[in-house]
Amino acid sequence: LPQNVNNWKGTEKFLKDVVEILLNYIKEENDRNSKILDFHHPAEMQQLIDLSIPDHPETLAQLLENCRNVLRLGVRTGHPRFFNQISCGLDLVAMAGEWLTATANTNMFTYEIAPIFILMEKEVIKKMIEVIGWSDGDAIFAPGGAIANLYAMNAARHHHFPRVKPLGQSDMPTLCAFTSEDSHYSIKGAAAVTGIGTDNCFSIPTDSRGRMIPEALEQRILQCKRDGLVPFFVCATEGTTVYGAWDPLPQIADVCDRHNLWLHVDAAWGGGLMLSPEHRYHLNGIERAQSVTWNPHKLMGALLQCSACFIKQDGLLFQTNQMSADYLFQQDKPYDVSYDTGDKAMQCGRHNDIFKLWLMWRSKGMEGYRKQINRLMDLAAYFTAKIRQTEGYELVIDPPEFLNICFWYVPPSIRHLDAAEKNARLEKIAPKIKAKMMERGTTMVGYQPDKQRPNFFRMIISNQAITREDLDFLVQEIIEIGKNM
Amino acid sequence: LPQNVNNWKGTEKFLKDVVEILLNYIKEENDRNSKILDFHHPAEMQQLIDLSIPDHPETLAQLLENCRNVLRLGVRTGHPRFFNQISCGLDLVAMAGEWLTATANTNMFTYEIAPIFILMEKEVIKKMIEVIGWSDGDAIFAPGGAIANLYAMNAARHHHFPRVKPLGQSDMPTLCAFTSEDSHYSIKGAAAVTGIGTDNCFSIPTDSRGRMIPEALEQRILQCKRDGLVPFFVCATEGTTVYGAWDPLPQIADVCDRHNLWLHVDAAWGGGLMLSPEHRYHLNGIERAQSVTWNPHKLMGALLQCSACFIKQDGLLFQTNQMSADYLFQQDKPYDVSYDTGDKAMQCGRHNDIFKLWLMWRSKGMEGYRKQINRLMDLAAYFTAKIRQTEGYELVIDPPEFLNICFWYVPPSIRHLDAAEKNARLEKIAPKIKAKMMERGTTMVGYQPDKQRPNFFRMIISNQAITREDLDFLVQEIIEIGKNM
Repeated sequence: LPQNVNNWKGTEKFLKDVVEILLNYIKEENDRNSKILDFHHPAEMQQLIDLSIPDHPETLAQLLENCRNVLRLGVRTGHPRFFNQISCGLDLVAMAGEWLTATANTNMFTYEIAPIFILMEKEVIKKMIEVIGWSDGDAIFAPGGAIANLYAMNAARHHHFPRVKPLGQSDMPTLCAFTSEDSHYSIKGAAAVTGIGTDNCFSIPTDSRGRMIPEALEQRILQCKRDGLVPFFVCATEGTTVYGAWDPLPQIADVCDRHNLWLHVDAAWGGGLMLSPEHRYHLNGIERAQSVTWNPHKLMGALLQCSACFIKQDGLLFQTNQMSADYLFQQDKPYDVSYDTGDKAMQCGRHNDIFKLWLMWRSKGMEGYRKQINRLMDLAAYFTAKIRQTEGYELVIDPPEFLNICFWYVPPSIRHLDAAEKNARLEKIAPKIKAKMMERGTTMVGYQPDKQRPNFFRMIISNQAITREDLDFLVQEIIEIGKNM
Repeated sequence: LPQNVNNWKGTEKFLKDVVEILLNYIKEENDRNSKILDFHHPAEMQQLIDLSIPDHPETLAQLLENCRNVLRLGVRTGHPRFFNQISCGLDLVAMAGEWLTATANTNMFTYEIAPIFILMEKEVIKKMIEVIGWSDGDAIFAPGGAIANLYAMNAARHHHFPRVKPLGQSDMPTLCAFTSEDSHYSIKGAAAVTGIGTDNCFSIPTDSRGRMIPEALEQRILQCKRDGLVPFFVCATEGTTVYGAWDPLPQIADVCDRHNLWLHVDAAWGGGLMLSPEHRYHLNGIERAQSVTWNPHKLMGALLQCSACFIKQDGLLFQTNQMSADYLFQQDKPYDVSYDTGDKAMQCGRHNDIFKLWLMWRSKGMEGYRKQINRLMDLAAYFTAKIRQTEGYELVIDPPEFLNICFWYVPPSIRHLDAAEKNARLEKIAPKIKAKMMERGTTMVGYQPDKQRPNFFRMIISNQAITREDLDFLVQEIIEIGKNM
C-alpha cells in the first residue's frame, strides 16, 4: 500500500472519506438551488488554491481538503441546468462503472491481462454493429471522436492504397477527402496528421438546414479528378456539432458508389439516436457506410471518454495498424491470441472505456435507452415551441431536427433596428449574456457565430436530469440578464 | 438522477455498496495468499458470465452482482506478485483521484468547463519541464505513449516542413526517421499514420546492452542522404520496453546537431527515473531533446492513462494542431482564451488525466518519489543478485541497468545440452512456465524472444507494494513449475 496509506484501517477511512466528499458533491450538483460554477479569471483562481508540487508529502487530511477545494472551484457539468456541451449529465451507474474501472486498473491490449473486459468489448461492439445494421464488422474503442475519425481516414487510405503504410505518401498522387463545411474540425485534423493535407480535405457546402448538398459533393469530386487529384474518402456527418443536422446518407452513399469512394459516417453525436426506433430514420442509410464513428460519451451519457470507430471490412483494422511487436503480442501464448486487440490499435496502452458503458447499458436495457432518448427529443420539441412563442427569441433553424436548438435572444433595444445593424449588435449580445451567466453561475449554454450569422446560443438537451422547468428557467434567465442590454 | 436510481437514498446505498465491493477487492488484491487470476480460455469465460446487452433494465442488485463477477474473473494487476507489465501496482491515492475525476466528469478542452484542471495541468507540466531541465516549453497530456510519440513526430515534421499541414506529403521529398531496433513499435506506427511510411523509419542497431549505436545512426543518416531521402527525426529511447536500456543521449544529440535533425526522447518508461537524483544520470542529455514522451502511468504509478508529450519550442503544438474551430474556441470569451488548450490537441474531447497525478504527487512530494524510485532500484539490484546466485537461472543482460531484469530459467534436463539444442529447447520453456503460472494464478511475469535469443522472462519491478519476499517467491515458483520440464 502507498507509503502514506500504510495501514488498512487508515486507507479504508481515507477512501470512505473521499467517497463521502463525492456523494455530497453529487447531491449538491443535483440541487437546482446550487450554483453551477463560481467563476474566477485564471489569475484570481490561482490565488484561491495552491496547485504546486510540494517537496514533502501532504497528509491524508490535506489531500481530502485538496479534493474538496478542487470540486468547489470546478464546473458542475452534471448540474441539470448545464447545457454547455454535447456531453452533459452524470449517469451515476456509468460513474460507478468508472470507479470500478479505476480500481481494476488494467490495459486493453491483451486477453492475458484484461480477459473479461476484452470479451465485454467484443460483445458490446457486436451489439452496436447490429444497431448500425451491418452483418459483420470490427471496431476499436478510441480516446474520443477525433482519434476515431483519424482511425477511419487511415483505414480508408490503407484499403485503397496499402503501399502508403510501408512507403509513405511521397511517391503517391495527391489524395483528397470531402466533408461538409459544418462537419467536425477533426476531419481536417486527420487530413493534417496523415500527411494528406488540410487543403486536400474539401469543405462541401451545406443547405439552409446545415446538411451537406450531395450535388455539390459530386461536382467537387469531378473537379478534383479533373485537377489530377485522387478522391478516396467522404465523411458524412450525422448530428453536426452546431446545428445537429443530418447529412443525407442515401444520396451521399450513391455518390460514393459512383466514384468508388470510402464513405465514413461521423455519428459521434447523432449515433445514439439509432437506439430509438421512433427517431432512427434520420440515420437511414448508415448501413451503407464503410466506417462509422459513434461516441457513447455523448448522447448515450457514458462518462468521457467513450468513443468507437467501426469498420465494416473485418480484418482491415489489423492490416492498417499492425506493427507485430513480438515482445507484446507473442504467438505462442497458451490461449487463442486472436483475442489480443493490441495490434489493431494505434495506441499501445489503451484505457478500459468499456466497463462503464456496459454497466450503464445493462442498467437501462435497450428499452431504457429508447425511453431516455425519446424523452430528450420530446424536451427538445418543448423547448423549441417555447422559444418560438417567447417574445425576443428567434430560432436560427426552424424546426431543429435533433437536440441542438440554436437561437438568438434579441433585447428590446435592438429589436427594431434594420437587419445589418441588428446583426452587428447581436454579435456582441450572446458573449455578454454568457459572461454574466457565468458570473451568476445559474446556468450555462454555449454560443458561437456561423458563416454570416452573428453569435447565437446553441442549446443542447442531452442530460437526462433535465426537466421542462429547467428549460423554462433558461429562457427566463436569459431574458433577465439580457433585457436591458 | 438516472431512471433506475430515482431516489437519493437508493442511489447513495447503491454507490456505497459498489465502494464496499471495491474495498473488499483491494483488500483481497493485497493479500498474498489470494490468486492473481482465475484463468479461463475465452470460450470457457463466456460461459461464466452473461455479457449480453439486455432488452430490459437490470435491477441495482443485479448490477452489483455484475460488478462482483467482473472483478472475480479479472486479473489483479495491483497484486504485489503481478510483474507482467511496465505499469504495475495500484496507488490508492491515484485511484481516489480517478474516482473524483469520474464524478467531476469534465473535458480538458477549455478553461470554461475545466478551469481548475486546466490550471493544474499547467502547473504539473511546468514542474515536469523543470525536471527535464528545459527553461521553457509546452506539453499536452495524451492517451498513452503511442499517441504522445505521434504528437512528437507530427510536431517535428511541422517544424521542418510547415507546408505539409495544408498541402500534404505528396509533393514532398521522402522524409525519413530513425529509431533503435529496440525502441517501441509506436515510432514505426507514427511513421505509418503520418504518411511517412514504416520503411522510411529506419531501425538502428543496438549494442549488446540494447543501446542504440550512435555511429550506426550517423552512418544510416549519411546513407539516406546519399539515397535522396530527407532525414528529419531521431528517436532515442530512455528505458527500452524489453531491456530497460538507455540510448546514449549526448552522442545521439551530437549526431542530431550535426545534421540538423529533431531529437525526440521516448522516455515513456524511463522518464520517472529523473525524480531520483541518485539515478537520473542515466538520462543525462535529455535537456538537449526537442521533444520528450514521459508516461506517469508507468514508473510514477499513476493509473492508466497518464502520458504526456513535451515540446521544447513553445507555440509549436498550437501551430501544428490548430484547426481554429470557432464554434469551440471563440475569441470573444470573457476570459483569457490562451488558457483554452483544445486547439493544441489532436483530440477534441480530452479526458482529465491530470487530477490523479497531481493528487498522488502531492501525497508523496518530490521526496516521496525519490524514496519510492530508489527503493525500486534497490529491489532490482536485490533481484539481480538473487538470479545470479540461483542455480538454473541466467541473466540475459548482466548487469541490468533499470527495473527490467531479463532472464532464463534453464531446467536441469537441458542444462548440459550444447548451445544450439539448449536454445531450441529454451524457446519453449518460458511459454510453458507462463501457461502453468497462469493456471496456478500465483504470480505473473511476461516473456518474449528477441533477435537470436530464445524466449526469456522480462521481470518488471515497478509496483511499490513489492517486497524482497515477493521476489524470492517468484524465483522459487518458477523453479517449482519448471524444474521437471
